[in-house]
Amino acid sequence: MAKKILIIGAVALGPKVACRLRRIDPEAEITVLDRDNVISYGGCGIPYYIGGDIADIEGLRSTQSHAVRNQKFFEEVKGVKVLCEVEALEILRKEKQVRVRYLTENNREELMDYDKLVIATGASPVRPPFPGSDLPNVCIVANLHHAEAIKKRIAQGKVGKAVVIGAGAIGIEMAEALTDLWGVETTIIEMADQVLPAALGKNVSTVVQRQLEENNVKVMVSTRVKEIRKAEDSEELTVVTDVNEIPCDLVVLSAGVRPNTEIARQAGLALGTFGGILVDRRMRSSDPDIYAGGDCAEIRNLISGENMMMPLGSLANRQGRVIATNISGGSSHFKGTVGTFCIKVFEMGVSKSGLTSQQAARAGFDPVCSIVSQADRAHFYPSSQVMYITLIADRKSRRILGIEAVGKMGDAVKARVDAVASLLKTGHCDVDDICGLETGYAPPYASAMDVINNAGNVLDNILEGRNATIDPVGFLKEFHNSDIRVLDVRDKVQAEEPIKRWGDRWINIPQDQLRNRLNEVPTDEPIFVLCDTGTRSYEAQVVLVANGITNTRNIQGGFSLIKVNEANFICLVE
Amino acid sequence: MAKKILIIGAVALGPKVACRLRRIDPEAEITVLDRDNVISYGGCGIPYYIGGDIADIEGLRSTQSHAVRNQKFFEEVKGVKVLCEVEALEILRKEKQVRVRYLTENNREELMDYDKLVIATGASPVRPPFPGSDLPNVCIVANLHHAEAIKKRIAQGKVGKAVVIGAGAIGIEMAEALTDLWGVETTIIEMADQVLPAALGKNVSTVVQRQLEENNVKVMVSTRVKEIRKAEDSEELTVVTDVNEIPCDLVVLSAGVRPNTEIARQAGLALGTFGGILVDRRMRSSDPDIYAGGDCAEIRNLISGENMMMPLGSLANRQGRVIATNISGGSSHFKGTVGTFCIKVFEMGVSKSGLTSQQAARAGFDPVCSIVSQADRAHFYPSSQVMYITLIADRKSRRILGIEAVGKMGDAVKARVDAVASLLKTGHCDVDDICGLETGYAPPYASAMDVINNAGNVLDNILEGRNATIDPVGFLKEFHNSDIRVLDVRDKVQAEEPIKRWGDRWINIPQDQLRNRLNEVPTDEPIFVLCDTGTRSYEAQVVLVANGITNTRNIQGGFSLIKVNEANFICLVE
Repeated sequence: MAKKILIIGAVALGPKVACRLRRIDPEAEITVLDRDNVISYGGCGIPYYIGGDIADIEGLRSTQSHAVRNQKFFEEVKGVKVLCEVEALEILRKEKQVRVRYLTENNREELMDYDKLVIATGASPVRPPFPGSDLPNVCIVANLHHAEAIKKRIAQGKVGKAVVIGAGAIGIEMAEALTDLWGVETTIIEMADQVLPAALGKNVSTVVQRQLEENNVKVMVSTRVKEIRKAEDSEELTVVTDVNEIPCDLVVLSAGVRPNTEIARQAGLALGTFGGILVDRRMRSSDPDIYAGGDCAEIRNLISGENMMMPLGSLANRQGRVIATNISGGSSHFKGTVGTFCIKVFEMGVSKSGLTSQQAARAGFDPVCSIVSQADRAHFYPSSQVMYITLIADRKSRRILGIEAVGKMGDAVKARVDAVASLLKTGHCDVDDICGLETGYAPPYASAMDVINNAGNVLDNILEGRNATIDPVGFLKEFHNSDIRVLDVRDKVQAEEPIKRWGDRWINIPQDQLRNRLNEVPTDEPIFVLCDTGTRSYEAQVVLVANGITNTRNIQGGFSLIKVNEANFICLVE
Repeated sequence: MAKKILIIGAVALGPKVACRLRRIDPEAEITVLDRDNVISYGGCGIPYYIGGDIADIEGLRSTQSHAVRNQKFFEEVKGVKVLCEVEALEILRKEKQVRVRYLTENNREELMDYDKLVIATGASPVRPPFPGSDLPNVCIVANLHHAEAIKKRIAQGKVGKAVVIGAGAIGIEMAEALTDLWGVETTIIEMADQVLPAALGKNVSTVVQRQLEENNVKVMVSTRVKEIRKAEDSEELTVVTDVNEIPCDLVVLSAGVRPNTEIARQAGLALGTFGGILVDRRMRSSDPDIYAGGDCAEIRNLISGENMMMPLGSLANRQGRVIATNISGGSSHFKGTVGTFCIKVFEMGVSKSGLTSQQAARAGFDPVCSIVSQADRAHFYPSSQVMYITLIADRKSRRILGIEAVGKMGDAVKARVDAVASLLKTGHCDVDDICGLETGYAPPYASAMDVINNAGNVLDNILEGRNATIDPVGFLKEFHNSDIRVLDVRDKVQAEEPIKRWGDRWINIPQDQLRNRLNEVPTDEPIFVLCDTGTRSYEAQVVLVANGITNTRNIQGGFSLIKVNEANFICLVE
């Protein structure tokens, strides 16, 4: 007899399971339920619809060959039955039934049998607990209905100012969408002391923050929203933070999501720390006849070993394929995630995989970081752009724990991170693997000693005790809180402005003169060595050490990253 | 006492060894010799200098911070002694000496001592053995002098037509350089039946060939040059092939390179099949005091297990670092290469790693390929472009053997290949690893089910016997040599032109109607199923098979690749 497969949720994972299963098992009775009438869409595309990159919302529901993925499409093309506006109310595990409600048929209820059940209920944006988070025009962006409503309001000219609460990926993408096409005056408010706090360390996140600011997004970090108020006589809102009050016409809440697992909880399925459904590598819940995946399930972080939520359409799709294979009697495993992530921030690409330094420390590692600043292709190639990479390893084991990268050419940034991400997933990736990483080389796309290899080389030098470093964020803190001096080994002309500003705290000896001017280097105090990127300053440091001047720190990323971290570090006295 | 390190060759590996060694060992006496007076340059940038992307040849000799890497630079900045125009004549292994000749000092000879010797003599372009290959204006492109001479001649307007012999990377890059900036009428002649025969399989190489042709480069494959003749009364040359005679003003020889290992051979060092120096993983030759690397050494291909020549500046740099570490008393290994390669061909990026299908078969594997054609980012994202990927695995072990990719956005092409390349190098990469590859996802950079994952998924389906395929090259051959018919499951309008051309050999049943029109599908003959990309035709095939129609082949890459393979496949009868 044909197996009955019931799938709750028809956005990403649900349809993937259904279609793959149909291809493997032509006999199975497959039914997908969704309480919405719009299904199978690319929710991650919403900011690009709102920002105008995607003109027509149908684009987010269409296949590569322009077919709209609606009920009819699934029926005729995919051979899969989808019931829209049908809500799953309760899972009766003993009976292997789900009680459902037909929302368009007077809320008629029905019991549906299953042999295997798939929970693909996704996650919902959190409405934070401060007063006013449920006011009109305080929006979440969870589905295409929300997207249309927001875009309509902006297009009507009703939004001059907006506040985005939460500087995670969706918050940043929404801020870009509002600012870039519509010229909405936008402020992002973030509780943490940096943007993208779950994804990036401080050094790289600062680059992202400056990118936002340079594109007219106001960024407030370390800021708490206390309340949102609505004017009595108009639609104007006021976001009250612990430092100021911001009037605006629209608030977008992007303070994270919460898995939709109430139905699973009520059925007694095991849930994890984050409230997500716990699954094994075959994506089975604690009931072997019930699978779960996508944004409602917790997955293993393969670096920390801990569970996490990682709500990404890409993971949902991979998991969907695994579930379909397993339901059809095969064996396929989803091992977990290494937390690979990327985002476009205006004309800049940001990408990461693994843990940040802070997360690594929390997970019990002893993280050591390299920060490199180098052209993303042969530096002599005309389109080359600077890329910054942070590579993180465990001191003792030399195991790579994470990588973060940022640069103007997003695909090139992604290329470096993806190459490391795929190694991270093997569980065996150490610093030497990155030094020797064999990625494609041709001047239009890479350097002979590519930025990614150099990220490994620098880390190797640090771990071997050859390169005593300080990161730009740490340098700025120490420089401002002490009277420590900088040895700038760049050319004389480049050192002129900092010398004007910092006087004798700024010593300039160009690298090619250093060997002959060693007597000018103070030996009785610690010295920060600086160049443009951290490369020549490292070489200079080696020369100093060889000559007995050992109390030095090489500023990683050099002046290029200091500028980004503190735009007014060099402020000419007129 | 300080170690004496002598390095022969100062282009890529030599300087890398010297500089790294100096940083690790401040005491060592390091001397680098080169018979040329121009050293440490990015030879791979030559085509971009000739093509005008790089205006000034100094750019190829300069650091990221615009210092020219000449003798003085190495002395003052790097602390390394470089002797230019000094030729190494003989290695006296017993005495641990090298006999050298000072080319600018009346050819004075001298014996130089070494504790460790590094051979970094590189490779030289082959002048093929046909008559005329040594005529004036029949050029090789081996160093900056050659580059300047060629560019000068073109800039003087003396080159209207050119012939490039050899369609490897340098041949293609030179053809682009000549055509793109200078409008030189250029023909590439290649003995093999495709361009980039060492790098790519036939399906992807055809895409590259069309790209060249669309940019006005004439490509002649399966063609042998028999002779080059020079006119008696002018500088005009005639390239005589086995099919025609081509008049031209310049011939560029790019028929491969040969390692410069005469000095190693005379010293009795072990050489390999290709005449390259044999080295172990520490990059030591058969004499433990002599290291070798770069284009003069053979390296292991980690997929085939065989030795190969892989003359790339990127590998030379990585090897140089390894050598320096080992000479200084450390332990560092260069395991070999997985053959990662990339090239820009006009506005198209091409990248590969591992073996081609043909190479895999020769190495004793049973290769199976998937070919996918998909948007390189979310298909709804405006800048998305089609990318083609071929993924190759061994049938029995499911081990990944190679990947080839091509698309308009080169960095994105490279991202996919590099992610697989880094896994290939681990020696443990199977099809499931590619299905589950966790690369970064955001609509501006990737699809939720990314093209690289789909390359794995399709290959999995093929290996599981669910997708019976034929590649475009194979399809066209069979279609033209038989009366086999095509079932086109695209929309009616897309099938109109092929039906005009091919009449009842072309059956159109749109995918969404297939389940209801199964009776129109012939069951007594084999059927090729086609859509735009191979995705819907696979789904259609699944439906056919489920209904007992099993004698079908799904055309991989679909119509998008057929068009590229045979531009006039659809030729309307007017």
